[in-house]
Amino acid sequence: MAAAAILPELAAQVVIPVAAAVGIAFAVLQWALVSKVKLTAEPRRGEAGGAAGGKSGPSDYLIEEEEGLNDHNVVSKCAEIQTAISEGATSFLFTEYKYVGLFMSIFAVLIFLFLGSVEGFSTKSQPCHYSKDKTCKPALANAIFSTIAFVLGAVTSLVSGFLGMKIATYANARTTLEARKGVGKAFITAFRSGAVMGFLLAASGLLVLYIAINLFGIYYGDDWEGLFEAITGYGLGGSSMALFGRVGGGIYTKAADVGADLVGKVERNIPEDDPRNPAVIADNVGDNVGDIAGMGSDLFGSYAESSCAALVVASISSFGINHEFTPMVYPLLVSSVGIIACLITTLFATDFFEIKAVSEIEPALKKQLIISTAVMTVGIALVSWLGLPYTFTIFNFGAQKTVQSWQLFLCVAVGLWAGLIIGFVTEYYTSNAYSPVQDVADSCRTGAATNVIFGLALGYKSVIIPIFAIAFSIFLSFSLAAMYGVAVAALGMLSTIATGLAIDAYGPISDNAGGIAEMAGMSHRIRERTDALDAAGNTTAAIGKGFAIGSAALVSLALFGAFVSRAAISTVDVLTPKVFIGLIVGAMLPYWFSAMTMKSVGSAALKMVEEVRRQFNTIPGLMEGTTKPDYATCVKISTDASIKEMIPPGALVMLTPLIVGILFGVETLSGVLAGALVSGVQIAISASNTGGAWDNAKKYIEAGASEHARTLGPKGSDPHKAAVIGDTIGDPLKDTSGPSLNILIKLMAVESLVFAPFFATHGGILFKLF
Amino acid sequence: MAAAAILPELAAQVVIPVAAAVGIAFAVLQWALVSKVKLTAEPRRGEAGGAAGGKSGPSDYLIEEEEGLNDHNVVSKCAEIQTAISEGATSFLFTEYKYVGLFMSIFAVLIFLFLGSVEGFSTKSQPCHYSKDKTCKPALANAIFSTIAFVLGAVTSLVSGFLGMKIATYANARTTLEARKGVGKAFITAFRSGAVMGFLLAASGLLVLYIAINLFGIYYGDDWEGLFEAITGYGLGGSSMALFGRVGGGIYTKAADVGADLVGKVERNIPEDDPRNPAVIADNVGDNVGDIAGMGSDLFGSYAESSCAALVVASISSFGINHEFTPMVYPLLVSSVGIIACLITTLFATDFFEIKAVSEIEPALKKQLIISTAVMTVGIALVSWLGLPYTFTIFNFGAQKTVQSWQLFLCVAVGLWAGLIIGFVTEYYTSNAYSPVQDVADSCRTGAATNVIFGLALGYKSVIIPIFAIAFSIFLSFSLAAMYGVAVAALGMLSTIATGLAIDAYGPISDNAGGIAEMAGMSHRIRERTDALDAAGNTTAAIGKGFAIGSAALVSLALFGAFVSRAAISTVDVLTPKVFIGLIVGAMLPYWFSAMTMKSVGSAALKMVEEVRRQFNTIPGLMEGTTKPDYATCVKISTDASIKEMIPPGALVMLTPLIVGILFGVETLSGVLAGALVSGVQIAISASNTGGAWDNAKKYIEAGASEHARTLGPKGSDPHKAAVIGDTIGDPLKDTSGPSLNILIKLMAVESLVFAPFFATHGGILFKLF
Repeated sequence: MAAAAILPELAAQVVIPVAAAVGIAFAVLQWALVSKVKLTAEPRRGEAGGAAGGKSGPSDYLIEEEEGLNDHNVVSKCAEIQTAISEGATSFLFTEYKYVGLFMSIFAVLIFLFLGSVEGFSTKSQPCHYSKDKTCKPALANAIFSTIAFVLGAVTSLVSGFLGMKIATYANARTTLEARKGVGKAFITAFRSGAVMGFLLAASGLLVLYIAINLFGIYYGDDWEGLFEAITGYGLGGSSMALFGRVGGGIYTKAADVGADLVGKVERNIPEDDPRNPAVIADNVGDNVGDIAGMGSDLFGSYAESSCAALVVASISSFGINHEFTPMVYPLLVSSVGIIACLITTLFATDFFEIKAVSEIEPALKKQLIISTAVMTVGIALVSWLGLPYTFTIFNFGAQKTVQSWQLFLCVAVGLWAGLIIGFVTEYYTSNAYSPVQDVADSCRTGAATNVIFGLALGYKSVIIPIFAIAFSIFLSFSLAAMYGVAVAALGMLSTIATGLAIDAYGPISDNAGGIAEMAGMSHRIRERTDALDAAGNTTAAIGKGFAIGSAALVSLALFGAFVSRAAISTVDVLTPKVFIGLIVGAMLPYWFSAMTMKSVGSAALKMVEEVRRQFNTIPGLMEGTTKPDYATCVKISTDASIKEMIPPGALVMLTPLIVGILFGVETLSGVLAGALVSGVQIAISASNTGGAWDNAKKYIEAGASEHARTLGPKGSDPHKAAVIGDTIGDPLKDTSGPSLNILIKLMAVESLVFAPFFATHGGILFKLF
Repeated sequence: MAAAAILPELAAQVVIPVAAAVGIAFAVLQWALVSKVKLTAEPRRGEAGGAAGGKSGPSDYLIEEEEGLNDHNVVSKCAEIQTAISEGATSFLFTEYKYVGLFMSIFAVLIFLFLGSVEGFSTKSQPCHYSKDKTCKPALANAIFSTIAFVLGAVTSLVSGFLGMKIATYANARTTLEARKGVGKAFITAFRSGAVMGFLLAASGLLVLYIAINLFGIYYGDDWEGLFEAITGYGLGGSSMALFGRVGGGIYTKAADVGADLVGKVERNIPEDDPRNPAVIADNVGDNVGDIAGMGSDLFGSYAESSCAALVVASISSFGINHEFTPMVYPLLVSSVGIIACLITTLFATDFFEIKAVSEIEPALKKQLIISTAVMTVGIALVSWLGLPYTFTIFNFGAQKTVQSWQLFLCVAVGLWAGLIIGFVTEYYTSNAYSPVQDVADSCRTGAATNVIFGLALGYKSVIIPIFAIAFSIFLSFSLAAMYGVAVAALGMLSTIATGLAIDAYGPISDNAGGIAEMAGMSHRIRERTDALDAAGNTTAAIGKGFAIGSAALVSLALFGAFVSRAAISTVDVLTPKVFIGLIVGAMLPYWFSAMTMKSVGSAALKMVEEVRRQFNTIPGLMEGTTKPDYATCVKISTDASIKEMIPPGALVMLTPLIVGILFGVETLSGVLAGALVSGVQIAISASNTGGAWDNAKKYIEAGASEHARTLGPKGSDPHKAAVIGDTIGDPLKDTSGPSLNILIKLMAVESLVFAPFFATHGGILFKLF
């Protein structure tokens, strides 16, 4: 056997929790900095009042004039709105968790029963699957620990999403208030808040996984095969939670958004986020429960799954068989270094440079991506050098494949850099600084129809380069280190998750900040600043979705590979009827799923429209601003609709692997997974980019920053109206169906992996019968 | 060896050409009946003038009042408009054929060079590939005959499309004139004309193939392996031509349609097909070059390919090895019986029953589908009993599989019936008689955005059952008779092609008839009759597309299987990086292709809009109807745009297999084919149904036939405007990108099959280098 890794086991055991602790500490620090912006109205004391807070002083005077700092009313109004949003979001999430909790409990029981039944709930140890001469723990233990891991993953995902939402609803009004002092201050507040969420999530995800491995290890002893098989439950739990979070939150936010826009902007001609619009609070709540909590759960799921996929393959490779701890936890080491790399990167946005003008916002966010990728490349090289033996073998569908540490470095790095490419392509297609979005805006000249045609075409086109990037990463990592390579490539793409999430969460926070500014009746100039933050946020949201989808593709393939290994299939031959029908039906599933989620948004939006119209028509003084609308009813409509409507698509995703596995067996299920993967990734990318492009085409016309844009505007012109229609259509595409699809492909794969022993033993009853 | 087929070779040699001849004779008869409607104005002689023609007499007095029969002006106006449409279509097709001819010539040279180079242009006979003990003709002969077959296929496809267009532009004005006498007369004229095209195409496709096999056979002698490999060129030629026909025609028709609607209906508030609209002639020309010529070429391509796929697999099965002619030409026998079955079916529409009211149109067309399927089921049983030995063996990726004749009957029948199911599901989702389209219409209440969201969701949802139907057919036929089973299942679906095409061509003819009625200034009541014909035509067009896509999926799989056999690959394992990257990139290609075609339509429509606006703004008296618009410029814009824009998507489809095969080799190409197949079929179905649903939602509001519909209308109301936007967006989806996609998947498969020997010998140079 080759030499061991340079880093001793003890060091690995120290590095991981320390990195996680550093990440959490950094998150707390960022939170403390944000909390310095006070929301309680302070005694007025002249010009630049205490309400500004933060690092105030003569030196940080920005090029933009400060204004409205001493308006006592504004502060208390912002605080009031923030409270309303926060309470709405908390109440929705609790309702959601109640229903999801029930579903998850049932599913946990299913996991236990199905996995326990593999060996008839026997408590006897069995010969190992891969090393026949050793004894492994019984299937019953696997069932118990998988269930525990599942619950652990679900709870971590839930907490991650919930904390993210809490932070976002804590930061939104503070960003608004800081916007009075200039765009730079507001940017830092929003970005720091995003960072709180990013680091908290990355660090806690790592820490919980690390602790679970060590605790489970006490029982499993040297049965690492069983240990890491049980750990896969963690990924399943995280992703199941994410599915409901994304779908439920997505329906919530878009029902409110579409409903608010259709009546407010289109029919009543009042601005976005106008406090007279009854759906405005629901809309702002939606940003937090959908884009923040949903995205947080989603990326946590990806992270958990790629780690689990890598670990389960590693456990049956030389690391696992020879019990080399350091290389075994290589995936966790990569994540640990990722936290540190992102920490350094964050300082570039918050401390090393300062945003002085609107035009600097997008470049600053883009720099975050580049810096984190560059720093992380060095980090990966270091981890690969210290944490891996020079040569080792990897399990490759029944055979062992020899790999060298630099090859594994390449696998992680190709994932990381593919992520960057996907990010930039997404930016190119969704930012209004480039011609694609400008062309879409231009097509609004001839009305909504051409806008939609151009927008759909843009989304389709934006798929090309990301797919080539994903294909190249897969080819390289697959060729070098089989499915383990693919899993670590996914991990590479997700290694800068803390920065990715910070950038991503920044968007909805800015969006909310703009909403609060409007509702609090702040000046036009402040609204302009928050709009600029928000426009950049749209692009970064699209980038974040690009990452989420790209990594989901890699993760799913890795999980698929692990499933195939665990189900003891040696080939997935398209030229067998069992596999082919799986492939074509699998490719159909994303359409089925999208049909459900889009129709849900549409129906919920119709209900919302009726309620908003009713209020405008029946509440006297509403349009004049003398009476307050009934926000609560709109919140209730969104809540009820999303809870009711998230069940069918959720059930489709969760039950499909079970039904296919039980009735048709593992070969057909393999086909389904492959089909859903290759088809879903395309729809997800195109839906998310089409939506982002429409949104920014509208913002391009509204902002009127160029000669061309001004010929299309101003707000209320025919092209602008056409652009609003596009934006509205894009809402469910980019925030509900599109981003949910990556969970669909990941979740079906990880679920198959967890249930693989059951399917392999008891599955395919239909074919057994005939 | 098992017993031979009951039908002797001589009988088979007689049955096929006779059936083809009967088909052609029937087409000529139908044409003669249509031509009885005179377009030249005859001397006026009182009430029901000679201009009506046909089987007139007191007995065929319809429940609807006859009107305007003695208006001399109308007849000459109709004739004039018809001439303009026919000349426009002819001129466009000639321009198109000129460019495509060049492309095809180059491609023919490529085929010759690539296939000839397989054995270095050697003229020496070689040992056969599958029966090593025999001698087969050299690769050079294969190159020559494949090239000839390619040209033959292209020319047949071209002639089919051209004749279809000629008949349609001959029948459109005649349908209008007959509409004066009632909806029943108009229906029969339109349907008969569709039948001319259907039978001509089905019969000539069969005849040419039959003659080619016999002529090629003179050279090939008993080398059936080589003979039927060369024959595959026929499918490639047919499909290549179809690609350009579909894409070019699709861009032409939709640029004109979208452009005409955006200015005419939306901006100027003038009715569809108003003669004041400068793009109106281009729009009507488009229906003929796109929906008629394009669809004709497309279905001919499918038919040619499924026959070729079946033949090439049969040639290396027991039929081919033992030189049993009758079972060898079983695919041709199925098509022969299909012609007879369709002939009987047609009589039900034209002679056995009579349409007396608008509400009877759709049921009559639906009955056509059911009757043809039922009759054909008996036909297939007969052919399978007489034309096949009771037991035989089929080549199955290196092994031989024993099949019984009743099993093959099941394969053909499952394809046939799956087609019927797809047809009905398509009808359910696109006809405004059912709730899906009514829901979409209802969503127009809240504007265009919800209309689009609901429409997209409807399209996605409409994929589910067709995919299950396709999957089931594939599973059954694949399990029973490997790839031969899949090929004959495709053939089964296409065996009623004559009826399918008749129904399909009926749509654009009715559409044109309505346009001519409007342009000729005929009364409102006549326009209502043609509108009713047209609304049924929209649904049947969607059904036709459903068939085209369903059969394309089966055909592609069969071709894919034949390719794999010919390229000597034994498994296409998704779990190898080479195949997987092919799969994911292949699944991306339909998006790339759709992006190109949709953008093309969008850009061309923008140009058209500008021209139409220019004419309205600069030509005095145009809106008042005192001056004629400049139709020719609009025709030129559509022509130029479609010729220019059809090249890039055409090149993408034609070059991808070549590039992938040469650079990456046959494994990756297999992945690409499978990926494009499973992904493309979904987009094709959803795009075509979404577009059809929007079109009919609009028509539902316009017709105002129910209480619900009237609350949404009338024309010009806000919901109607929203519906028009949806309809416009749907145009490129349902008539350009959607239906082109089935050619994409078929063409790449048949091209790979033709070039397989070259790829297997010289392909994959990138992997050979590294």
